[in-house]
Amino acid sequence: TLTLPVIGNGREDDVEVAGGKSVYMVSDGTGWTVEHSVNAALGQFEHCLVDRVCPVNTHLFSGIVDMEPLMEIIKQAAKEGALLAYTLADPSMAESAKQACKLWGVSSTDILGPITEAIATHLGVSPSGLPRWAPERTYSLDEEYFQRIEAIEFTIKQDDGALPKNLHQADIILAGVSRTGKTPLSIYLAQKGYKVANVPIVMGVKLPKTLFEVDPEKVFGLTINHVVLQTIRRARAKSLGFGEDVKSNYSEMDNVKEELDFAGRVFAQNPVWPVIEVTGKAIEETAAIVLRLYHDRKNRCSMPRISKRY
Amino acid sequence: TLTLPVIGNGREDDVEVAGGKSVYMVSDGTGWTVEHSVNAALGQFEHCLVDRVCPVNTHLFSGIVDMEPLMEIIKQAAKEGALLAYTLADPSMAESAKQACKLWGVSSTDILGPITEAIATHLGVSPSGLPRWAPERTYSLDEEYFQRIEAIEFTIKQDDGALPKNLHQADIILAGVSRTGKTPLSIYLAQKGYKVANVPIVMGVKLPKTLFEVDPEKVFGLTINHVVLQTIRRARAKSLGFGEDVKSNYSEMDNVKEELDFAGRVFAQNPVWPVIEVTGKAIEETAAIVLRLYHDRKNRCSMPRISKRY
Ligand SMILES: Nc1ncnc2c1ncn2[C@@H]1O[C@H](COP(=O)(O)O)[C@@H](O)[C@H]1O
Ligand SMILES: Nc1ncnc2c1ncn2[C@@H]1O[C@H](COP(=O)(O)O)[C@@H](O)[C@H]1O
Ligand SMILES: [Mg+2]
Ligand SMILES: [Mg+2]
Repeated sequence: TLTLPVIGNGREDDVEVAGGKSVYMVSDGTGWTVEHSVNAALGQFEHCLVDRVCPVNTHLFSGIVDMEPLMEIIKQAAKEGALLAYTLADPSMAESAKQACKLWGVSSTDILGPITEAIATHLGVSPSGLPRWAPERTYSLDEEYFQRIEAIEFTIKQDDGALPKNLHQADIILAGVSRTGKTPLSIYLAQKGYKVANVPIVMGVKLPKTLFEVDPEKVFGLTINHVVLQTIRRARAKSLGFGEDVKSNYSEMDNVKEELDFAGRVFAQNPVWPVIEVTGKAIEETAAIVLRLYHDRKNRCSMPRISKRY
Repeated sequence: TLTLPVIGNGREDDVEVAGGKSVYMVSDGTGWTVEHSVNAALGQFEHCLVDRVCPVNTHLFSGIVDMEPLMEIIKQAAKEGALLAYTLADPSMAESAKQACKLWGVSSTDILGPITEAIATHLGVSPSGLPRWAPERTYSLDEEYFQRIEAIEFTIKQDDGALPKNLHQADIILAGVSRTGKTPLSIYLAQKGYKVANVPIVMGVKLPKTLFEVDPEKVFGLTINHVVLQTIRRARAKSLGFGEDVKSNYSEMDNVKEELDFAGRVFAQNPVWPVIEVTGKAIEETAAIVLRLYHDRKNRCSMPRISKRY
């Protein structure tokens, strides 16, 4: 059996766990679901997490398909006084986790149990109880798999204004000045299966002709507050190795403002393009806004919805 | 207030919802958490979903921060006989959703309520009750934000063996023959903040010298079953516009086998590189395995864990 002991949560390396409350996260699969859920739930405690007023440390244990490592982890959670959040498909594993937590005084939450039960009742079908990596499961390469890969490869190829002749093949085109997050946003959308091209708006550089030939409904402008943009560009310049004192054109306030104005004029000349303000938004938030507009434009109805079949 | 009506789940476009049970997904934020959870829970019903024996249609409604659209959606769910899964940070919104569902006979599940409550008790702190886009919240560009963007940009630049002189800067290097999923895997890991470079192994092409100069502990070989690889390559050749009947070198079985053997010899000569079998694995599954090994190698201890601070 495949046994994945522990997976990192984000890029954070193994930090000294000095002080702070612990949250243990256990999955028989990749652990991405429990990680995503705990991370979103922690968003409700930002007021307390900020500046590490009440520090929290999460620990992800994935690929836990056997009883023995499961019990070890729960024992350790008890020792550390940790909270346990888990996703375990096998009902006997889930039940054992619950019982062991009770026995050893560990608070625990089954992340997917309730929704899985609700779906079972809704469909009138029992859950398989098979974890992601059960040998009985067969993963088949479906159309979606190929489509996602194609989207990712297309999006990489089209980064930073490359190959403007391909713009008509894109599902979504992002336009904005440097450091408005076009590249990470493109990649985020590509992972969801959309073919994305991004086109930088640079002062004094002519935009590709094809940008104005494609369906304007698929073009999205990105804009950002000039002070925030300057901060980001300064960080960028620093990471590119320019000294703090070197005043680069790129991050000087006058230039930043002028370039944003220039972009604003381009957007004004193309009123069909929605302009999205990215200041203070995480990439996944801007992605949600872009996709809302994208699908909204496709099916204009009073209660728009996008459906996926399973 | 920001109101996002509905967001797509994956690339699937607005499908005719003929037959099948519906699952409504509602969030006051992006909707990615409820989508992720429902998707994982549906994994437990694959035996029934396959070939659409018991078809399921999901519908994602995001950015629902006001009572009125919330009630409209629940009414519609009642009409369609849908199940409702939601994430609503504002306790009065969550409570209203629950009550309305009860009143109108809609089964409902609060995806984050239980884990949020558990964390509140664990920390001894009340949840803020503020949704992601509440004006009171301020999103700050932290170090992690810049690190993730840098990782994504690095990874794009290093795709497909480009700029081998930079291999020493990578956190993770993936090596494998064409169509083992190096590119989507690299991008998946980059989104998590890792700087990834991928190096194609091509029959008769010399691998870059730098690949053998870097720390071998950060290099991962990818391998795949030859029949599956041929299928993938045929699909690839087709999508590149080669006819079905054109036998390309690329997807002919002899060549596929020979190239995999060649890669196998490279891996044998570099025994420190783990070789990961990707056959039948989704990208996020391979990513979990790579990161398990990556972190395992960093902190070799009996109960390895990776910690993240909040
Ligand atoms: N396709 C799938 N088939 C069966 N179980 C799955 C599937 N995807 C996820 N799961 C289960 O859902 C939970 C969360 O998965 P993960 O996000 O990989 O940790 C685990 O209990 C997995 O075993
Ligand atoms: N950083 C955050 N601060 C406050 N609430 C959040 C944060 N991130 C996510 N949430 C909440 O967590 C739930 C899931 O978020 P989402 O994945 O954006 O739909 C929603 O109720 C959001 O309002
Ligand atoms: Mg860029
Ligand atoms: Mg590739």
